[in-house]
Amino acid sequence: MDRETKEHIEVGAFSIVAESGAARRARLHTAHGTFNTPAFMPVGTQATVKGVNPEQLRAMGAEIILSNTYHLHLRPGDELIRDLGGLHAFMGWDSPILTDSGGYQVFSLSNLREIDDEGVVFKSHLDGSPIRFTPESVVGIQENLGVDIMMVLDECLPSGATHAEAKASWRRTLDWARRSLDARRKPECLLFSIVQGGMFEDLRTQSAADLRELSFDGYAIGGLSVGESVEEMRAMTRISAGALPREKPRYLMGVGTPVDIVDSVEMGVDMFDCVMPTRSARFGRLYTEDGWINIRNAAFCKDPAPIDAECECYTCRNFSRAYLSHLVRAKEVLAVELCSIHNLHFYQNLMRRIRSAIEEGDYADFATAFRQRWNSAGGTQA
Amino acid sequence: MDRETKEHIEVGAFSIVAESGAARRARLHTAHGTFNTPAFMPVGTQATVKGVNPEQLRAMGAEIILSNTYHLHLRPGDELIRDLGGLHAFMGWDSPILTDSGGYQVFSLSNLREIDDEGVVFKSHLDGSPIRFTPESVVGIQENLGVDIMMVLDECLPSGATHAEAKASWRRTLDWARRSLDARRKPECLLFSIVQGGMFEDLRTQSAADLRELSFDGYAIGGLSVGESVEEMRAMTRISAGALPREKPRYLMGVGTPVDIVDSVEMGVDMFDCVMPTRSARFGRLYTEDGWINIRNAAFCKDPAPIDAECECYTCRNFSRAYLSHLVRAKEVLAVELCSIHNLHFYQNLMRRIRSAIEEGDYADFATAFRQRWNSAGGTQA
Repeated sequence: MDRETKEHIEVGAFSIVAESGAARRARLHTAHGTFNTPAFMPVGTQATVKGVNPEQLRAMGAEIILSNTYHLHLRPGDELIRDLGGLHAFMGWDSPILTDSGGYQVFSLSNLREIDDEGVVFKSHLDGSPIRFTPESVVGIQENLGVDIMMVLDECLPSGATHAEAKASWRRTLDWARRSLDARRKPECLLFSIVQGGMFEDLRTQSAADLRELSFDGYAIGGLSVGESVEEMRAMTRISAGALPREKPRYLMGVGTPVDIVDSVEMGVDMFDCVMPTRSARFGRLYTEDGWINIRNAAFCKDPAPIDAECECYTCRNFSRAYLSHLVRAKEVLAVELCSIHNLHFYQNLMRRIRSAIEEGDYADFATAFRQRWNSAGGTQA
Repeated sequence: MDRETKEHIEVGAFSIVAESGAARRARLHTAHGTFNTPAFMPVGTQATVKGVNPEQLRAMGAEIILSNTYHLHLRPGDELIRDLGGLHAFMGWDSPILTDSGGYQVFSLSNLREIDDEGVVFKSHLDGSPIRFTPESVVGIQENLGVDIMMVLDECLPSGATHAEAKASWRRTLDWARRSLDARRKPECLLFSIVQGGMFEDLRTQSAADLRELSFDGYAIGGLSVGESVEEMRAMTRISAGALPREKPRYLMGVGTPVDIVDSVEMGVDMFDCVMPTRSARFGRLYTEDGWINIRNAAFCKDPAPIDAECECYTCRNFSRAYLSHLVRAKEVLAVELCSIHNLHFYQNLMRRIRSAIEEGDYADFATAFRQRWNSAGGTQA
């Protein structure tokens, strides 16, 4: 994080410092400092990365985190957060924050919703009260939060949508993207739009081409990691990333496993988020260089080794598999913290290695070696 | 903590450096370093202080923690911990550890038990399997754990015990104390015995006198904070502490509120433990200089102030009451961590102030002022 440059470089500037094939090593400059890409954003849905405090996030090298418009609007409320000085002050994190727009949550969490060209009405998953989101209101909420990167409201397709349905849905999402740009009031809050188009190559290409015409600060690839095959995800990522402008950051939403990230960087993706490292940690699934282990396995009860002998995280420097195994069995809250720190550190460390490999110009070799070691251990099952 | 002195001063040496009335400011030297008294020991029943990691415990100034023989014997097992290098290595805490003997847990957690002069048989609260504790086995378990201070097995009286019952019980506990001394094999593991005698002044005095005849490294006052009135607790503490040898540390088990501690130090008590700061934290009850607040109160939802403007803990330096209120409502695990850090820091800070007041020779004035401010805020209700 080049905090000292934040006064001198224009907010939104995306500086590519190295390329290796389609993979890019860059920096995105925001109102709360610069972060390095390819970047993985730990997920802090409710204004906290579950089980990990901001000091621990910094210590593992996280430079940007993700939070969620839908959840924070419902509780504690974006106006309350605005009145308390914004989301950074509220959660004690003074580095960049991106917020998901809430589109995905509206379509996945609320079973009672009505959508029209104007926006979407849904019921709160907390108390059932009706809430209306429009492209304009979602920008307004994120400006209240004062985040560094806002996402536009998009319509998330149901799985199994036909080509005609996906095409109609894209027209609406494109219109919403235009309205989001018009609604923006704070230039220091960057705005990213989202490529959709289901699993249809022509719609993905069209979607990216349509958005290129509009002046967004970055472009996300949405609608993936929703149950499709790995091959479909790779194909849609490759097409979407390839059709987006080189000079802007590309963000693959909600993805993914370590191998998903290594592969997608090779296609030119710059930013990632995923609940997997923290959610897996809560179920005792821990990443190592040779795939993952489940700490609940009886074999680890007496194991004096750290989770991963190569890892330099707080957990691995101080605690054994046997101790973690005990904490999990005793249902101690420290288990959540120590396992989450390890998994998030694993992801941050992976991103550091990815960035180094791009700088050294041999990203394809790095990616091939990583895939081989990971897959030979069955690691992709995580 | 004078870690550099640990090679030079005899383990078990108790150095009184200042006195103010009956209150003493001292240092106890153990195999894992020296700690300052009066000391409060955070409770780490299952080899973890709930919600707080060892780094955070050190940062708040904790120099010794308490763990539990009964719980660790049942899970993960003291032999497993021994084979992994002892409790310090297991839980990543290299400073002093005291373990409660398990007597209290045997008598409070297990509803099926049989006691005789030899020891006690009870059923595990985890799986109902039968376990036998004797004075000898309890010393052996604690030596397996490799702790710095071991407690003898004692019989805990049921509330409402008669004088005759309490007297008979004391005879057995005294016999057990003698057997514990004989059973000890590791001189680096200090051994404390426990004054009992219910709410009977003569039995408390007799109990202390009996134990003085035996060469323990320190003396605990047990059987208090079990539902008796504050006046009874104070009377029994005063009698017990006054009858114990000046040159050995005195430990009041399971006590107590901040005022309990301030009062008991004035009677010559040196060591304390209590689950209150961590348990209260999990229920949102947070200590301040003017009593306690409940962070669940709606008034705090929009409050930008820290828990306590005078507090220098990690939580108060970084987060508002409004944020903690949100975390508690959202049932986020970070709430447990941040609230526990604050409450434990409050206790450690209280002990620092207590030690300073004794050094300055005006402990009675300090205690009077503390009681007045605390009681005027209704703080003792916590």
